[in-house]
Amino acid sequence: MLEFLNKHIPDMTSEWINKTYTSGNGVYAQPKDSEAYDQLRHMNKQFILALNNCIFGKETSLQEWSTSIASDRTRTATPLYDIIVNFSIFRSIYYSYIEKFIEGNSKEVSGNEVINWVRIISRKFDDTNS
Amino acid sequence: MLEFLNKHIPDMTSEWINKTYTSGNGVYAQPKDSEAYDQLRHMNKQFILALNNCIFGKETSLQEWSTSIASDRTRTATPLYDIIVNFSIFRSIYYSYIEKFIEGNSKEVSGNEVINWVRIISRKFDDTNS
Repeated sequence: MLEFLNKHIPDMTSEWINKTYTSGNGVYAQPKDSEAYDQLRHMNKQFILALNNCIFGKETSLQEWSTSIASDRTRTATPLYDIIVNFSIFRSIYYSYIEKFIEGNSKEVSGNEVINWVRIISRKFDDTNS
Repeated sequence: MLEFLNKHIPDMTSEWINKTYTSGNGVYAQPKDSEAYDQLRHMNKQFILALNNCIFGKETSLQEWSTSIASDRTRTATPLYDIIVNFSIFRSIYYSYIEKFIEGNSKEVSGNEVINWVRIISRKFDDTNS
């Protein structure tokens, strides 16, 4: 699973970049070929990598990542609402890749495993949002 | 599962009410024995009931619920951020009951089923938030 999710980081990032929401101000309102978006792509990839590791119990703190997001949000005057919506969009993409993994896996994945992953993911997202 | 989740609606609501976050303004800042909180309890129960039905494909729209939340938020001047945080807190409680169901169930629940539930829940929460 870790291998599967790591392999698909570029796909997840592309999907997310294609779907980002903007209310008109801040970093998400920039053109998608701007330096601002290159930075978003980079940070999203770092985030997924850290998240993937979290699920597998290698305690990777998202604290550093979280702090850099917060300062970037302030610098670019991005509304908090936009950030939260884009987090939700990304979370939905992330779950879709977990679903792909489960469907493509020859070994049956148990419901117990999945709800454990989901609770970790959910907690990590909430920590990062606040 | 529907039966299990419906049975635990009062527990989920109590847990959530005990954990609500407030930045100091709006409905969540009211005393927990106030009429405002009675209303929150009532709305949360309605929401869980609708959400439980959604997971089982009986197409229950959360639209009506969502509209009443929006107008209540305006009336009580509750910050959007507080609402979103309290949604996250509730989502985490909801997942914990799904976990309880899976653990207490004699019939094995598959990973496929669980990720399907999670994707529906996630979508419903996002629809309601926006």
